[in-house]
Amino acid sequence: MRNIALIVSYDGTDYYGFQSQPGGNTIQDKLEHAIFLLSGEQVKLTGSGRTDAGVHARWQVVNFMTSSSIPIERWALALNTRLPNDIVVQRAYGVPEEFHARRKALSKTYRYTINCNRTPDLFRRRYEFHHPTPLDFAAMQEGLKLLLGEHDFSSFTAPQSTKPSHVRTILDARLEVEAGSAAQAVSFHDEISRNWDERHYPGKQRGVIHLYITGTGFLYNMVRIIAGTLIQVGEGKRTSADMATILAARNRAKAGPTAMPHGLSLWEVVYDYQ
Amino acid sequence: MRNIALIVSYDGTDYYGFQSQPGGNTIQDKLEHAIFLLSGEQVKLTGSGRTDAGVHARWQVVNFMTSSSIPIERWALALNTRLPNDIVVQRAYGVPEEFHARRKALSKTYRYTINCNRTPDLFRRRYEFHHPTPLDFAAMQEGLKLLLGEHDFSSFTAPQSTKPSHVRTILDARLEVEAGSAAQAVSFHDEISRNWDERHYPGKQRGVIHLYITGTGFLYNMVRIIAGTLIQVGEGKRTSADMATILAARNRAKAGPTAMPHGLSLWEVVYDYQ
Repeated sequence: MRNIALIVSYDGTDYYGFQSQPGGNTIQDKLEHAIFLLSGEQVKLTGSGRTDAGVHARWQVVNFMTSSSIPIERWALALNTRLPNDIVVQRAYGVPEEFHARRKALSKTYRYTINCNRTPDLFRRRYEFHHPTPLDFAAMQEGLKLLLGEHDFSSFTAPQSTKPSHVRTILDARLEVEAGSAAQAVSFHDEISRNWDERHYPGKQRGVIHLYITGTGFLYNMVRIIAGTLIQVGEGKRTSADMATILAARNRAKAGPTAMPHGLSLWEVVYDYQ
Repeated sequence: MRNIALIVSYDGTDYYGFQSQPGGNTIQDKLEHAIFLLSGEQVKLTGSGRTDAGVHARWQVVNFMTSSSIPIERWALALNTRLPNDIVVQRAYGVPEEFHARRKALSKTYRYTINCNRTPDLFRRRYEFHHPTPLDFAAMQEGLKLLLGEHDFSSFTAPQSTKPSHVRTILDARLEVEAGSAAQAVSFHDEISRNWDERHYPGKQRGVIHLYITGTGFLYNMVRIIAGTLIQVGEGKRTSADMATILAARNRAKAGPTAMPHGLSLWEVVYDYQ
């Protein structure tokens, strides 16, 4: 038996999330079916973590045991020809027997993308949350920083979470403004709109921002609730300091709404392997 | 009556092209329907040109006459709330009575995008043609340059074209390699793959390339046949000099295949108006 790890990307738009479900329309089900078509084996995949319905992955890691003798360098291409075209195996690796995609993960990074230009970017609309008015990027960045370190994240998880502890550690959290992403004024009306923005949304900006959050583990809906609350900070409905107050309350009702799934991507998973 | 011009972007994946059809599933039909929902008028739109089924537009221009008194700055947002989310009106302008989106266009630019990394870019798969082996970018660039100027493009249009003349003028044609687009080697197997590429595809590159072609007018399927033929130049099946021979032959059978529609976007239309 060999242990194989796959780096997988997917567009989660049309799936009910990562984890296998009776209906079968999940990333795990599609991957397991492709492996079955290729090797004839009914394997049980382990993912680094679940992603919700509609959430994407740039860099999900899964592993499974196989007795197939197909050479390792053939797996990625062979699986891709057996997968729908919104799931892509980027690479396949032979990994040590003890490798476990979830338990051996040191950290995971999620990215939440918000486009606050007036019109959505049509060609990225499946991967960006469109917020049609400007946001205060600096306040959001400041609020985000207050989440760094070890905290009880009860305020930032769905009430139905059954995890025994809601203490998690955020290793890194940053807001990046995408260079050149603010829509440019090309007409008289755009200039008028810019003046409008300046008068009605002082201190707020347009453009595309990415929230990168790295942690050792995440609770159910945690990144989406953080994003939804930070959007309220960006709108000026809350201050950045409120993020600390919300954390301290350990009460989901104190935080903002759960942001839409399509803005979220599992960005990277780091392991203690070469 | 006022003449209104719209700058429109669309993802053509799910439509039967720009031009109105009895089935109604076209960009023009959706735009005319949104205008009807907004103003109650059944207008007849004029587009700068048709795009085929599956072809996208970053910057299509349309115009129509209306007696509606809705202020010009309201049209874009109001139409967007009445359009499917894969069609977006970027801006609306009041234009002089004589403005005609097709007849007054000075030039149009199309972009054809080819990804020749080993795996497709999942998040751009609707807008890039994936060619899984490397291509000779320099030879393609050279072949593209031979199309510049005024030529009879009979070899580069579908045989069913009924246009009285196939003489068209290409004002600009260039190949751009997207910076940082070549997939990076991150593992031992990637390095092996790179050696494989070097041995089996000498002088060819991986990465994402964009072919930008600007002309005063285009024939049916012209850009897609040019792209399909240039891919053969990039594969080494033809030389760049063959592009001149194919032009001279005035025979569709001498050119390469019509490239897939999803790699093509109407990129820009230029008018002689401020």
